[in-house]
Amino acid sequence: MDRLKEAIRRQGTVQSGKVLQLDAILNHQVDPELIMEMGEEFARLYRESGVTKVVTIESSGIPIGFAAAYKLGVPMVFARRKKTLTTDNDSYCERVPSFTKGIVTDLMISKKLLSSKDRVLIIDDIIANGDAVRGVIRILEQAGCTLVGLGIAVEKAFEKGAPALREAGVRLDSLVRVASVDGSEVRFTD
Amino acid sequence: MDRLKEAIRRQGTVQSGKVLQLDAILNHQVDPELIMEMGEEFARLYRESGVTKVVTIESSGIPIGFAAAYKLGVPMVFARRKKTLTTDNDSYCERVPSFTKGIVTDLMISKKLLSSKDRVLIIDDIIANGDAVRGVIRILEQAGCTLVGLGIAVEKAFEKGAPALREAGVRLDSLVRVASVDGSEVRFTD
Repeated sequence: MDRLKEAIRRQGTVQSGKVLQLDAILNHQVDPELIMEMGEEFARLYRESGVTKVVTIESSGIPIGFAAAYKLGVPMVFARRKKTLTTDNDSYCERVPSFTKGIVTDLMISKKLLSSKDRVLIIDDIIANGDAVRGVIRILEQAGCTLVGLGIAVEKAFEKGAPALREAGVRLDSLVRVASVDGSEVRFTD
Repeated sequence: MDRLKEAIRRQGTVQSGKVLQLDAILNHQVDPELIMEMGEEFARLYRESGVTKVVTIESSGIPIGFAAAYKLGVPMVFARRKKTLTTDNDSYCERVPSFTKGIVTDLMISKKLLSSKDRVLIIDDIIANGDAVRGVIRILEQAGCTLVGLGIAVEKAFEKGAPALREAGVRLDSLVRVASVDGSEVRFTD
C-alpha cells in the first residue's frame, strides 16, 4: 500500500517523539477513496476465506471495516466502547486497556449480532499493544465464532501486539508496517 | 428509501415503548450495501452544492458519512466525542447533551481539518432533539465554514430537532421520517 505510506509520510505527525498521530488520514478525517482501496486490499486477501462478518472497533476502525465489508459483501459489526441507553443488555463484554486513551474501556458486542456459524475478519486501523483486538478475539471466543484473520491498516512493528498474535497462530495482515517513529520521522519496514 | 424503511420495520426494535433501537442496521451493525445506497442518495441530493467536506459524528454517523463522502468524492471528518491522548489540543469544542446516552459530551474537531473555504454537508444517522448536530453547526460557525445542509438517515418527526432546524433556515434532508413509535410498531410519515 504505497499510497497509504505516502499519506502517512505527508500527513502523519509524531507527538512527544513516539506517538504517531494519524488524525488527518485515519483517526479523525479520512480520504474515502484511499480507505476504499484499503478495503479492497483486505477483501483480496480474504476473498477465499468464507468471511461472513467483519468486526471492527469504534471509532477509527469503522471506515476501513466498512470498506472491507462492502468489498466482501458481508455485514460489518462495530464493537462499542461504552454502555449506552440503547445498548442491548445481552452483550458480550471484555475489559481492555486503551493504548491511546490511557484508560480502561469495556468493549461490547450484542449477542444478537454474532453466531457460532460466523467466520469473522477483524479489521482495525492501528495495532500497537494489541489489547483492543485481543478483547475482540475473546468476545468471538465467547460467541463461538471462527476467527479467520486480522486485517490491520498500520502495524507498529516495534510494539509487541502483532508479533505476539502471530506467535499465537493468528493470521494477521497489515497494509503497512512502521519500523520506527523517531522525532518527526516515520520509517517503514520495507 | 423504501429499503431503509423495510430494514427498520424488520430489524428495528422499540425499547420502553419509545426508544427506537436500530443496532442491527445503523448503530452497531450495518449492511454496507444499504449504507452505500443511502450515501448515493445524499450525494444525489447535494451533487450540485459544491460540498468540499462531509462532517459526521462518531460513531454511528461514520458509515453513512463515509458513504456520502465517497460518492461525493470529498474527505470525511468525524467529530470526536472525547479528548484522547492523540487528539490535537488545537480543536474546536462544543458541549452537547446526548439524547441516547443521557449524559453531556464534548464534540471536538481539530482546527486543522476545517477551513473557512469549506462547504460542509453534515451527515448523521438519527435526529431526535438535534443537540449533537447543533453542536456541529456551532463548530462550523467557529471555523467560518459554510453549512450546505444536513443529511439525516432517520428523522424522528415527532421530536423537535428537525422542525426547529428547518425553521431556522437550515436545509435538512432525511431519508425516512418516523411519525411515531408506539409499543412495538414504527409508523412513517408517508
